[in-house]
Amino acid sequence: MLKVGATIGILGGGQLARMLALAAAPLGLRCHVYSPEKESCAFEVVHAYTCAAYEDKDALAGFADAVDVITYEFENVPAETAAFLSKRKPVLPDPKVLALTQDRLVEKDYIASLGIATAPYAAVSSAAELHAAIEKIGLPAVLKTRTLGYDGKGQAKIMKVSEANAAWRALRGVPCILEGFVKFEREVSVIAARTAGGQVECFEVTENVHRDHILHISTVPAKVSSALAAEAKRVATKIAKAFGYVGVMGVEMFVVRRKGAQHVLVNEIAPRVHNSGHWTIDGATVSQFEQHMRAVAGWPLAKPLRLGKKVEMINLIGDEILDTAHWLKQPGTSLHVYGKGKPSPRRKMGHVTRVWPGK
Amino acid sequence: MLKVGATIGILGGGQLARMLALAAAPLGLRCHVYSPEKESCAFEVVHAYTCAAYEDKDALAGFADAVDVITYEFENVPAETAAFLSKRKPVLPDPKVLALTQDRLVEKDYIASLGIATAPYAAVSSAAELHAAIEKIGLPAVLKTRTLGYDGKGQAKIMKVSEANAAWRALRGVPCILEGFVKFEREVSVIAARTAGGQVECFEVTENVHRDHILHISTVPAKVSSALAAEAKRVATKIAKAFGYVGVMGVEMFVVRRKGAQHVLVNEIAPRVHNSGHWTIDGATVSQFEQHMRAVAGWPLAKPLRLGKKVEMINLIGDEILDTAHWLKQPGTSLHVYGKGKPSPRRKMGHVTRVWPGK
Repeated sequence: MLKVGATIGILGGGQLARMLALAAAPLGLRCHVYSPEKESCAFEVVHAYTCAAYEDKDALAGFADAVDVITYEFENVPAETAAFLSKRKPVLPDPKVLALTQDRLVEKDYIASLGIATAPYAAVSSAAELHAAIEKIGLPAVLKTRTLGYDGKGQAKIMKVSEANAAWRALRGVPCILEGFVKFEREVSVIAARTAGGQVECFEVTENVHRDHILHISTVPAKVSSALAAEAKRVATKIAKAFGYVGVMGVEMFVVRRKGAQHVLVNEIAPRVHNSGHWTIDGATVSQFEQHMRAVAGWPLAKPLRLGKKVEMINLIGDEILDTAHWLKQPGTSLHVYGKGKPSPRRKMGHVTRVWPGK
Repeated sequence: MLKVGATIGILGGGQLARMLALAAAPLGLRCHVYSPEKESCAFEVVHAYTCAAYEDKDALAGFADAVDVITYEFENVPAETAAFLSKRKPVLPDPKVLALTQDRLVEKDYIASLGIATAPYAAVSSAAELHAAIEKIGLPAVLKTRTLGYDGKGQAKIMKVSEANAAWRALRGVPCILEGFVKFEREVSVIAARTAGGQVECFEVTENVHRDHILHISTVPAKVSSALAAEAKRVATKIAKAFGYVGVMGVEMFVVRRKGAQHVLVNEIAPRVHNSGHWTIDGATVSQFEQHMRAVAGWPLAKPLRLGKKVEMINLIGDEILDTAHWLKQPGTSLHVYGKGKPSPRRKMGHVTRVWPGK
């Protein structure tokens, strides 16, 4: 259990690290950000940071010496970096979770082993296997690289068998997974937090709308039945427990209708604070970022309560960040600029949250 | 009008500067803190700071060069410092406001000149004048130094005429003001924000309870009539306009009953974000800190709306900061540790805010 005044090291210097640091400060916790990017936007809000490569052992050792516990803002922390740091200071969530979530196939197999439903999927490591997988799963389907994909990168949609070979070539023959298209009613997510002692708190089920494979809008409450909401939270809790997870994770799910009732299929797990949980900064009595810091510090979690009758989070992608003047004038709206400098297309540059007070 | 990415300089490195910086970050505004105290808690949350005396012209010049606009977290900025900086960069609120609020007598005379009611008062610059003032105002009364007093420092209560000379000696014969004791129903405050263009937004009237001359608890809604609330906001707005104020100010008032109706008497003006506005971080759709940064940046103010049916802010004074474990477990409660290190008696070390969601 960290004392007030302790220092949490964060691997990664993007907006998630930035918002983690901003949430840590009121708790009296210091943050030390480690990132290889000179222009890391998280550097701006902390007293201490290290700008060095993830392979730089000297820098990593110095970083480990300077902090009390280490966490990360992204799931693609190199395994060797995590192992090196683990020998020096606690790394939370446990790096074994990274191994489970960095590879889509390993992740899906793991979820399935817990008896949790996912979209149909099959491993693909050759063009021949792709055709066999299509045979098994049917079309349309999505071919995805097993590792390093996000926000629609490393994906190819296959509508007809004749498109299969082109898709395989487009992903350059790296190990892939074919996922069956799910006819879903809506996309939702659950942001769950777990402490080392086993306390779990889930935020309210969030409804998400994507645009061009990037999260566009998150809304709470989600338009789902209370039974579905309970099921979604149960699933997230089960995964967090199975992982022995410490911190905040996001579980993306599809809501499907089977025999008249809504059910969830798990789509993806993010072993970190998650974009669909950004609404909690302004729309809940505790934010996902604070929950993560509490868990990593070994502190109790707060019971999250929504503020307002409705909360909506809208991502500002690319040039959309240039229109802050518009958002500053909207009622009940909080602006979050990530401080990433010049916008580039498809890049998450900020978000806004609107809260409708009342019940 | 500042652009996103601009830098706001803050004079003073205490908790108010810290919370201003934490509010600036999501707006995409950088902060540069200037403070002579090596252990300034605001240094922890900013990328850039200057640790130097307020008389250090070289350091001040470098600070002015590094920022786009300058503001302050405390009213006792030396006049010469403010004048020096004003020649280099805009200082907001205008330093003339400092001159009006650093001296209790000048402040009271100014408020009275606006036709706004205050407690009865008189200038005291000798023991003889003190006796004349007691004659005029009556007892009990409070003798206060005209400058540099806060949180009950520089004050002496006078219950009987025989205590007058001791009170005068206790304050060491510096220029004073004698203030009549007000039989008030409650103490309230209005946090008002004003832009250079004249937009004014007041937060809801806040009810305050002091303990040992230090703010203990702030609660919204205050137990006052809507007519009184309107009067209180009108008074705060009038003062902000008269000052040509830019930024957030706190106006402390007594609620008194005259001929059956509630009225306000202005007690004190703080030309800065104010302790009784801390509840707005967690309990409103915009915080006083964000409003101040918006005003100083030349951006529009947000219309503040309360979140929840009740909000309560409790200051953590001295050793009370050691019991964070207690507060982390309270429902709907946000902890704010200022990071000031070892607690000392009567020092504001943090606060907590509890929000009761609903309407």
